[in-house]
Amino acid sequence: MNEQQTVSLADAKRVLAAGEAQATEIGQPMNIAVVDAGGNLVAHVRMDGAWLGSIDIAINKAYTARAFDLSTADLAEQAQPGQQFYGIAASNDNRIMIFAGGIPLQRDGRIVGAVGVSGGEGEQDKAVAEAAAAAL
Amino acid sequence: MNEQQTVSLADAKRVLAAGEAQATEIGQPMNIAVVDAGGNLVAHVRMDGAWLGSIDIAINKAYTARAFDLSTADLAEQAQPGQQFYGIAASNDNRIMIFAGGIPLQRDGRIVGAVGVSGGEGEQDKAVAEAAAAAL
Amino acid sequence: MNEQQTVSLADAKRVLAAGEAQATEIGQPMNIAVVDAGGNLVAHVRMDGAWLGSIDIAINKAYTARAFDLSTADLAEQAQPGQQFYGIAASNDNRIMIFAGGIPLQRDGRIVGAVGVSGGEGEQDKAVAEAAAAAL
Amino acid sequence: MNEQQTVSLADAKRVLAAGEAQATEIGQPMNIAVVDAGGNLVAHVRMDGAWLGSIDIAINKAYTARAFDLSTADLAEQAQPGQQFYGIAASNDNRIMIFAGGIPLQRDGRIVGAVGVSGGEGEQDKAVAEAAAAAL
Repeated sequence: MNEQQTVSLADAKRVLAAGEAQATEIGQPMNIAVVDAGGNLVAHVRMDGAWLGSIDIAINKAYTARAFDLSTADLAEQAQPGQQFYGIAASNDNRIMIFAGGIPLQRDGRIVGAVGVSGGEGEQDKAVAEAAAAAL
Repeated sequence: MNEQQTVSLADAKRVLAAGEAQATEIGQPMNIAVVDAGGNLVAHVRMDGAWLGSIDIAINKAYTARAFDLSTADLAEQAQPGQQFYGIAASNDNRIMIFAGGIPLQRDGRIVGAVGVSGGEGEQDKAVAEAAAAAL
Repeated sequence: MNEQQTVSLADAKRVLAAGEAQATEIGQPMNIAVVDAGGNLVAHVRMDGAWLGSIDIAINKAYTARAFDLSTADLAEQAQPGQQFYGIAASNDNRIMIFAGGIPLQRDGRIVGAVGVSGGEGEQDKAVAEAAAAAL
Repeated sequence: MNEQQTVSLADAKRVLAAGEAQATEIGQPMNIAVVDAGGNLVAHVRMDGAWLGSIDIAINKAYTARAFDLSTADLAEQAQPGQQFYGIAASNDNRIMIFAGGIPLQRDGRIVGAVGVSGGEGEQDKAVAEAAAAAL
């Protein structure tokens, strides 16, 4: 039998709130999503004015970060043409997002979920995701 | 040009909070989702212990309620075999949910979004959706 | 070699205009779509206030009416549980609509396309589709 | 509550007509589509002789331009291998079009929908989309 730590809704809300605060600070409205250790959505917010196309992307960046236990920025490098995971974006019903903004959530060195952010430049998404993840 | 009122994230959070409170009161953890006037997701929560399969259902009940400007409980009756909308569940890429738990959100007599709830018996989902919608 | 009569964009616009006029007369905003002899979309309109969920349905009612060269109201009867085409709604990537509102377009006794209408009660959709088809 | 301006069907028809006129002038039949502020289709036309495969592309170019509030030509640059949005085409159920021909529709500096054009060379699609958008 395995035991698994996984984010609660209360954890997810804390993560989202920190992400929202950071997005507000940089002046870029975002979609932010949290998935649990099973890769399943726990909570999502779309800030007023955030891109409609980023709903799906934020949720799937979070999914991707937990699906492979790495940041989507790191996956991006390995998913370029000629690299070892080129083509991975077509797997999992196209849910694999290979650009920055998805980060695993960790507690005591173990991954307990992930956060995904979409709504701005890649660097902005990443910065908001990091601020969000730090609030866990 | 048309002018349209649509729920803000602050509105959606109030709706979710009211739904969560009602779900807690009846002792049944739920997935609750809010979409805006365009049918696009604004916010979602999955309460601890709520069904994984209900993530998609809650989001799509909200979508359905806005897509046809009626409650999914009402649509359910018309989507039974022999009724006028039998078969509608296969439309819109299978996003149409034909059972109780999705309700349009109204302000001043106009529909501004919708809430969807999934996680229990149909009557429970409906009761939570009604409590959520009343908080708009 | 076969020769095929098929609706032009000018034909489709005439059909849509007649449908819009009928929908306005009965006071129910509609989605109306026309496909050609190949089942491919020629033109679509969503009247102000028409259901969002009916975009897909109108287009696919038109597709269905041409795909099987019959009205979707007629198909509905044969697609009920226990009838010979029960289950057909799951075919063609769920594009088959088995309720009223899709009608083949005919010229000189040959089918040259189809019109699909969605946005009201089944009887309303059918009436608007008939008015639209008559304008061909 | 947020207030949102969104294109009416009358607006969409004006945009389509301007696009058709431009396509006729350059002698290249096109598919042209308009979505509203919620990213939902308002109207579509396929000119006689236009590519069948462009129906979907025109609609989804319009969707993409609204989903990210930018032209698909601009998105194209950022979606190339090695760029920050490489991989975005796999998101949103493959509805994201990363080549020229989709343009947001603006009124008083706010985005109220988008137009998408497909049927020729990228430069032709873009020119027709620009003529269409200017008619708003």
